[in-house]
Amino acid sequence: MSLVIIGSVAFDTIETPYGRRERIVGGSGTYCALAASFFTKPKIVGVVGEDFPEETIDLFKERGIDLQGLKMESGKTFHWEARYGHDPNQRTTIKTELNVFENFKPILPPEYRSADIVFLGNIDPDQQEDILAQVKHPKLTAMDTINLWIAGKPASLLRVLESVDIFFANEEEIKMLAKEANLIKAGKELLSQGPSLIVMKKGEHGALVLGKDFVFGALAYPCEEVIDPTGAGDSFAGGFLGYLDKVKSFDEKAIRKAGVFGSVMASFVIEDFGINRFKSLSLSEIETRYNQFKKLVSF
Amino acid sequence: MSLVIIGSVAFDTIETPYGRRERIVGGSGTYCALAASFFTKPKIVGVVGEDFPEETIDLFKERGIDLQGLKMESGKTFHWEARYGHDPNQRTTIKTELNVFENFKPILPPEYRSADIVFLGNIDPDQQEDILAQVKHPKLTAMDTINLWIAGKPASLLRVLESVDIFFANEEEIKMLAKEANLIKAGKELLSQGPSLIVMKKGEHGALVLGKDFVFGALAYPCEEVIDPTGAGDSFAGGFLGYLDKVKSFDEKAIRKAGVFGSVMASFVIEDFGINRFKSLSLSEIETRYNQFKKLVSF
Repeated sequence: MSLVIIGSVAFDTIETPYGRRERIVGGSGTYCALAASFFTKPKIVGVVGEDFPEETIDLFKERGIDLQGLKMESGKTFHWEARYGHDPNQRTTIKTELNVFENFKPILPPEYRSADIVFLGNIDPDQQEDILAQVKHPKLTAMDTINLWIAGKPASLLRVLESVDIFFANEEEIKMLAKEANLIKAGKELLSQGPSLIVMKKGEHGALVLGKDFVFGALAYPCEEVIDPTGAGDSFAGGFLGYLDKVKSFDEKAIRKAGVFGSVMASFVIEDFGINRFKSLSLSEIETRYNQFKKLVSF
Repeated sequence: MSLVIIGSVAFDTIETPYGRRERIVGGSGTYCALAASFFTKPKIVGVVGEDFPEETIDLFKERGIDLQGLKMESGKTFHWEARYGHDPNQRTTIKTELNVFENFKPILPPEYRSADIVFLGNIDPDQQEDILAQVKHPKLTAMDTINLWIAGKPASLLRVLESVDIFFANEEEIKMLAKEANLIKAGKELLSQGPSLIVMKKGEHGALVLGKDFVFGALAYPCEEVIDPTGAGDSFAGGFLGYLDKVKSFDEKAIRKAGVFGSVMASFVIEDFGINRFKSLSLSEIETRYNQFKKLVSF
């Protein structure tokens, strides 16, 4: 199978109670693709500027990520700055410099158009729709979004929602989009609008996966040191979809395991700043943590 | 075995997005004892005024709750008024009228002094200490508390904490008492101060049970209608300790199942105002929901 990921590839400046890092590599596409690369060989679609580090490109290649869809354009790479307090679920965006991302028109390379799984990162819903139209016969489509689009382009967003299979979002976004204060009711409302699966990301409280006829809950791993929460949600999506691409199945059993592998990847990425933890991560560590998740909830 | 529960037996005036109820029966002791009564025959220690309804006394008796320790004094029953918004984890206390609770000195009836399990509800830690001194050789002691005592009587509270086996508290209380922003670190800090188990109640996000050499996570049941969140934590403790009293075991396996039965009882009580749901609840409903909890997390 094959997984195509559309998202930002960026520089992040991050401040957490554990320190500050200037212009480290981040972006939703980056986190998602790196997390997925432990399960499959994802293809990434995005844009970077001339200032993007060669060593990160090398890392992507080493991890088997297909870079045909990653364009380099003249100018600077997208830069985002944020600060976290002690509650890792709360963050403040300080600055967003779109740079080369501003006029980015994602075009899928021919080889990407026959993708089995497509993940639309949290970009403009009109762009998400454009991309969907470029894929021939995807077996599974998934999308993420952010408050910005729920508030600013709700009609476009709901149109994309109608056409995808999986909607990834955090609690607040789901309640906001469904205009409903109860999370489960809100999720069911969104289920009735198109997707067959709503993946509700709850940060340190884990995730709920709501299907048409089942609900699965994954806890977050009890972390003592959340060094940098950035990318947890995107790494969750990467682990989730990477696992599905690997096992070539979308049945309930696969979905439940995907939820756990999503949580596993999120639990690793927050152990260090940016993408650092993924540089040293091994398959056996992933397997060990998967078993710890099993132990965590067994009774 | 036998379980003694010390806590408030009260009138609550509650407002939630689903409505308002004036002076309905509530109190930590009430919720805890009723929840426990589905597993064992708990003994309750508390005080009510002359205005306390005979029909609730009858309900306690029907449910097999031992009332030797429930004193009736001249005056009015403790009255608490609170309001909840759409987030069931957030509530505002409007009024607290201690009434007969103000000068309550809990004295254990002779038969209660040989209790196997003692639960100290969220009363003044000095009173909690007094009660502990009245029990002969308890096999298991547990306590709850509230922010009021963490802020107002930290030294007394820490002294009780040293002598109990299980500390039940919500996330905020655990972080506040341990002076640590990370929940897991905070829990471990409290574990080092005496208890062998910290039960972290997270409301709609479930509960984490932290032992010296294991951690168990119970999700909350995905509820579509949280009619009245009052008593969820006390019902959790009642289900937890009631189950342990029933199975006469405190090993890890029993503790994990106790965590689920705690969540089960909390998930029922919030389905209606006050203690109403417990009036109609059956053992087969409890069994069914236990199995749904198993399904919820299985992968």
